[in-house]
Amino acid sequence: MSAEHDRIRAVAWTEAGVRLLDQRRLPQEEIYWTLTCSSEVAQAITKMVVRGAPAIGIAAAYGVVLAARTCFSGTGSGWKRLLEADLCNLEAARPTAINLAWALTRMRAIVHDLPDHHDPEIALLAEARRIHKEDIAANRRMGELGTALIEGAAGVLTHCNTGSLATGGFGTALGVIRHAYSKGRIAKVFADETRPWLQGARLTAWELVQDGIPVVLIADSAAPYLLRQGEVQWVIIGADRIAANGDTANKIGSYGLAVAARYHGVHFMVVAPTSTIDWHLSDGTSIPIEQRPPEEVLTLGGKAIAAAGAEAYNPAFDVIPAHFIDAIVTERGVVCQPTHERMKVLLG
Amino acid sequence: MSAEHDRIRAVAWTEAGVRLLDQRRLPQEEIYWTLTCSSEVAQAITKMVVRGAPAIGIAAAYGVVLAARTCFSGTGSGWKRLLEADLCNLEAARPTAINLAWALTRMRAIVHDLPDHHDPEIALLAEARRIHKEDIAANRRMGELGTALIEGAAGVLTHCNTGSLATGGFGTALGVIRHAYSKGRIAKVFADETRPWLQGARLTAWELVQDGIPVVLIADSAAPYLLRQGEVQWVIIGADRIAANGDTANKIGSYGLAVAARYHGVHFMVVAPTSTIDWHLSDGTSIPIEQRPPEEVLTLGGKAIAAAGAEAYNPAFDVIPAHFIDAIVTERGVVCQPTHERMKVLLG
Repeated sequence: MSAEHDRIRAVAWTEAGVRLLDQRRLPQEEIYWTLTCSSEVAQAITKMVVRGAPAIGIAAAYGVVLAARTCFSGTGSGWKRLLEADLCNLEAARPTAINLAWALTRMRAIVHDLPDHHDPEIALLAEARRIHKEDIAANRRMGELGTALIEGAAGVLTHCNTGSLATGGFGTALGVIRHAYSKGRIAKVFADETRPWLQGARLTAWELVQDGIPVVLIADSAAPYLLRQGEVQWVIIGADRIAANGDTANKIGSYGLAVAARYHGVHFMVVAPTSTIDWHLSDGTSIPIEQRPPEEVLTLGGKAIAAAGAEAYNPAFDVIPAHFIDAIVTERGVVCQPTHERMKVLLG
Repeated sequence: MSAEHDRIRAVAWTEAGVRLLDQRRLPQEEIYWTLTCSSEVAQAITKMVVRGAPAIGIAAAYGVVLAARTCFSGTGSGWKRLLEADLCNLEAARPTAINLAWALTRMRAIVHDLPDHHDPEIALLAEARRIHKEDIAANRRMGELGTALIEGAAGVLTHCNTGSLATGGFGTALGVIRHAYSKGRIAKVFADETRPWLQGARLTAWELVQDGIPVVLIADSAAPYLLRQGEVQWVIIGADRIAANGDTANKIGSYGLAVAARYHGVHFMVVAPTSTIDWHLSDGTSIPIEQRPPEEVLTLGGKAIAAAGAEAYNPAFDVIPAHFIDAIVTERGVVCQPTHERMKVLLG
């Protein structure tokens, strides 16, 4: 197996700024943008140039470095006050993934401790790099912990993209799949195409093909019929926000997979770093669900697929109640059959 | 409300041959093909120029007229022997919808009774027209019977396309939705986009917009989350083949809708003419499920959406066990909570 996933970097810091791989153009084109101001980073997050809960947290952290650079070079000692607007702008870029707010909270703590007359770039860049590096390490650890749950040579089904493209590198759910495959624990990987953005078809298949891991794509609606056939033992997905009781928000379609998996006795694994846990929410009912533009459903590649006059309902995420989840895998350990009580072992 | 659905005819007989509306090009282009030989009709069925279980039965019936014309004009009295190859060719065009074999059985019965030296066209055309006309009448009747099951102003969700385009005219599930909407029984229609062919987005939305019935499209995977929200009281779908116990094969995704509907206490209605019932199959396990080309999942509008090297699994249908179905609506009456015993009231 090649280590192609070590080459894929959705987000990278360069001398010139934040370098993002444009995930809207994959797999046809591998285009990189180098962004030099934080409002461009916020826009790139909103428009899904970069997506995936951990990856947008990392991108936002680097965005703070850019913002601080501009604020400090413009005003010198007034930079901290000026920076606040940029932080708010970054935080508002997308509502559901808590990793965004989590990364900004870490960056804010550094800002807080810095003197107002001091150039903040070195300290902030160091923290952004730490966030990035810790995410990759967390993915590696989750890969091992998740693999330990899989018996035999299993069939697995995944949804959306949770690989190197969605994270600092390696992946959450896809990190488990990569590691488990390398250990012979996985016989077959099925991937939902994941409408409307087709992250499964465009991104997950691209990552797995590059790693030499065979992947079989299915239309999202074929998943329950596939689960019924007994070829899949584990559904493995990522998360955008996990409430304190284990309720999990993830890409639209995850909830239906959980209902179907339970009905068919298929195990259900959520893989996410603890930065995805929102300890302020006691359950999933108050997780904000992003409503994306109807055009994402009504058009395809810029062309209308539905008659003019049709409306669309386009929630980007749904919420899986904790009782459907067999295991939440984090870098700090695994919580089986999550409850509010059991989740507490993950508190830092 | 306009009676636009009376204008839409997926299949029509003209002096020149069988006229088909090319459903692969809708809603962008309204293109009609006039086919003059039965092998063209078989190809059009296989390639989904025409689709929908009742519509392909009607198209095949007209295809027999074309085949008989060619056979008789070529050989005169030997036409019946020659015709057999064309009948087999039409029957093999698609495997799941039993309406195809049902229509050909009716045409074969006419052929059987005709003298071998007699021009068969008038008699065969009369039978094909009867099949077509009866289908429209069945749809109208099912529209009334299905509407009677819906209380209040309900939210409904439908899958694939079951309207004028899928039938002789008016529609099965969409016929119920049309009629119920006109009687004030429906507050809101949601339609699954229905990957990979997007029949919901391209065809169902097109039909409903033309009729002035508001429609909200969703990605297929959003359906369980929508059902959870309590806005939908009925899932209403068509059928491609119904076994003697009520097990129902329909467009891929129907099974998952049934699992999710039951979990959420949402009613589930199957609407299909009795020509869709295969009395030879005691249950759904032996319904042949068509496997369509992987390219339908791997490409979109002729362009690759997945990395080269990815495979795809592309079953065109799945099977809903009868115990998930609250009502099967046919032109001969309604069977609630179908079982082998209860289905017998539909035997002609």
